[in-house]
Amino acid sequence: MSLPERTSLALRFSGERIEVLDQTLLPSREIWIEVRDYRHMIECIQRLAVRGAPLIGIAAGVALAREAQRGTPQLHDVAMRLRAARPTAVNLMNAIDRLMPKLSDPKTVVSEAVRIFDEDVKHCEQMAESAARLINDGDRILTHCNTGGLVCAGRGTALGVITKAHQTGIKIEVFVDETRPLLQGARLNSWELTRAKIPFRVITDGMAAFAMKKHSINSVFIGADRIAKNGDVANKVGSYSLAIAASYHNIPFYVVAPSTTLDKNCATGADIPIEERSSSEVHANAPVWNPAFDVVPRSLIAKIILESGEY
Amino acid sequence: MSLPERTSLALRFSGERIEVLDQTLLPSREIWIEVRDYRHMIECIQRLAVRGAPLIGIAAGVALAREAQRGTPQLHDVAMRLRAARPTAVNLMNAIDRLMPKLSDPKTVVSEAVRIFDEDVKHCEQMAESAARLINDGDRILTHCNTGGLVCAGRGTALGVITKAHQTGIKIEVFVDETRPLLQGARLNSWELTRAKIPFRVITDGMAAFAMKKHSINSVFIGADRIAKNGDVANKVGSYSLAIAASYHNIPFYVVAPSTTLDKNCATGADIPIEERSSSEVHANAPVWNPAFDVVPRSLIAKIILESGEY
Repeated sequence: MSLPERTSLALRFSGERIEVLDQTLLPSREIWIEVRDYRHMIECIQRLAVRGAPLIGIAAGVALAREAQRGTPQLHDVAMRLRAARPTAVNLMNAIDRLMPKLSDPKTVVSEAVRIFDEDVKHCEQMAESAARLINDGDRILTHCNTGGLVCAGRGTALGVITKAHQTGIKIEVFVDETRPLLQGARLNSWELTRAKIPFRVITDGMAAFAMKKHSINSVFIGADRIAKNGDVANKVGSYSLAIAASYHNIPFYVVAPSTTLDKNCATGADIPIEERSSSEVHANAPVWNPAFDVVPRSLIAKIILESGEY
Repeated sequence: MSLPERTSLALRFSGERIEVLDQTLLPSREIWIEVRDYRHMIECIQRLAVRGAPLIGIAAGVALAREAQRGTPQLHDVAMRLRAARPTAVNLMNAIDRLMPKLSDPKTVVSEAVRIFDEDVKHCEQMAESAARLINDGDRILTHCNTGGLVCAGRGTALGVITKAHQTGIKIEVFVDETRPLLQGARLNSWELTRAKIPFRVITDGMAAFAMKKHSINSVFIGADRIAKNGDVANKVGSYSLAIAASYHNIPFYVVAPSTTLDKNCATGADIPIEERSSSEVHANAPVWNPAFDVVPRSLIAKIILESGEY
C-alpha cells in the first residue's frame, strides 16, 4: 500500500513521495524538499525546515508510515528516533505513540498516519469556528510566532482563528511579534497574512507591551507546544512575557491548540522539558542563553481553546 | 580659543578636531569618524553613529561650540537644528538650551560645552557609587539597551553601575537583552562587558521574563532618555515590557540617569514625544511599527537614581 495523496501548506505526500516546504527559506524562497527517509525527516525537523507543533507530529507520522510500507527493519527503533527529534512539542510524541502499537501492520500504520493528517484539518476548522467568536469587528489582535497553515495539516491554530475571523467579514488588524531569534512572526506570519490579505504590522518582541497600550490591543492569540494537565502552556519563547503584559493591560490571552498538544502526564508546566538551542541562532558573537520555549502559567490565560472545547 | 583635549569611549576632541566612534559598526569594527561640521554631527546622531541620551547632548554641545569658535553665521539656527536632531532624549535639548544664552561669546560656549562633558564624567561616578550599593554579591542582573561608557563622557548610567559593582569585587552575572531592532545590547553591551571582563549572557528580548523566573534575576537596571516630572521614564523600546515583567516577579526595577535627563516641562510620560524610526531598521519586508522608545510608568520603578540622589 502506498500513501494516498494529501496536500497542506507545508507538507504533501502521495505514493512513495513525501515533500516538505523548507520553512527556513520563507518568505524569500519557496523550496520544496523531497524527504528521502526518516533520517532526513529528523534532520528537517531539527533544523526547523519542518516546524510547528502539530506539523512535526503529522510529518513524523507520515515518515514512519512510509518506513513501515518500505519494510524498513527495526521499525520500533526508527519510531523512537523520530519521537526524540525535538523534546518540547508533545504532538510529536503523541503521533508516534499512536502509531507504535500498529507497527507490525504497514497498511494500518499508513491509514492511521493519514488519519492524523485528516483529523488535524478538521480540528483546525473546529478551533477556528469556536474561537473566531472571541474576535469582534474592529479588533486589533496581537500574536506571537507562526501558527497558521504552515504548522498544521489544516488552517492552523491561533493564526487559523484570525484568518477565519477575517474570512467571515470581521474587520481586524494584526500585530505580529517578529519572534526572535528565528523570526517566525516576521517571516512566516507576514507570508501567511499577506496571502490572506489581512492588514498587519510587524513589531519587535520588546514592543508588544507598548503596542498593547498605544494601539489598544483587544486580544492576544497564541498556539501551544505542550499543555500540561493543570493548563500551564509551553510555547515559543516570548509567550510568557506577552502573557504577563496582557494581564497587566487586562487584555484576554487565548491559547489555541488541538488536543494532540495535551500532555496529561505532565502535571504542571514545570514538568515540561524546554529545548535549549544553539547560541548561533542568536548571532550575538557572545555567550548566549537560548531556550526555544517558555511556559505560560494557567493563571495568565483567559481560555485554552481545543477542537473539543475549552480546557 | 580652541577645544581643550577630552577623550571618552566614543567621543574625543582637541583643538579644531572632533571625532566620534561609529557605534553602528561595533563590535566588528572600531572606526572613528572625524566630524566635519554641525551638519555632519546631526547626521551622525540621526543614523545612530553617535547615540545614548547623555552622549548626544554632549556631542551636540561640542559641535555647537566649535561652530561658535569658527564664527559660523546664524549660530542660533545652527543650535536649533542640532537641538532637533532627535526628539526623545531630552539631554540634547538640555545641553543646547544651556549653551544658547552664551552664543554671542565663543569662548564661553566652548568652556560651557567642555563643562557639560566634565560634569557628566563626575555624575557617572556619583550615580555608580550610590547605585552599586543596590547590588549584592552573587546577583544576577538584567539590563536593556547599552548604557555604559559608549553613551556618556563618563562610565555610563545603568551599565556604569554594573561595572562599578564588579570593580569593587562584587561577583555578578549580567543578562543582556539583545535589544531589537538595532541590537545595542547584543552588540554594544557585549563589547563593553567583554572589555570589563564581567560574566554575561545575551538573550533575545522575548526571553527576559523567562530569564527572570528561571535564573532568579535579582534586579533590573536601565538608563533613561527622558524622565517626566512625575517620574515616568522614556527609554529604549522594550523597557516597558521589562518593567511589567519585573513587577510580576517582584524584582526591583532601577533607572539610572544624570539629571540632564530630567524634563520638568513634561508633566507625565504621556507628554514625552516618542520617535518612530524607519521600518527598514526591522528588516521585515512587511508593514512595521517601529517606535524607538517606550514609557515606563513611575509605579513600576523601584528607584530612579540621579547623581544628585533619588528622584
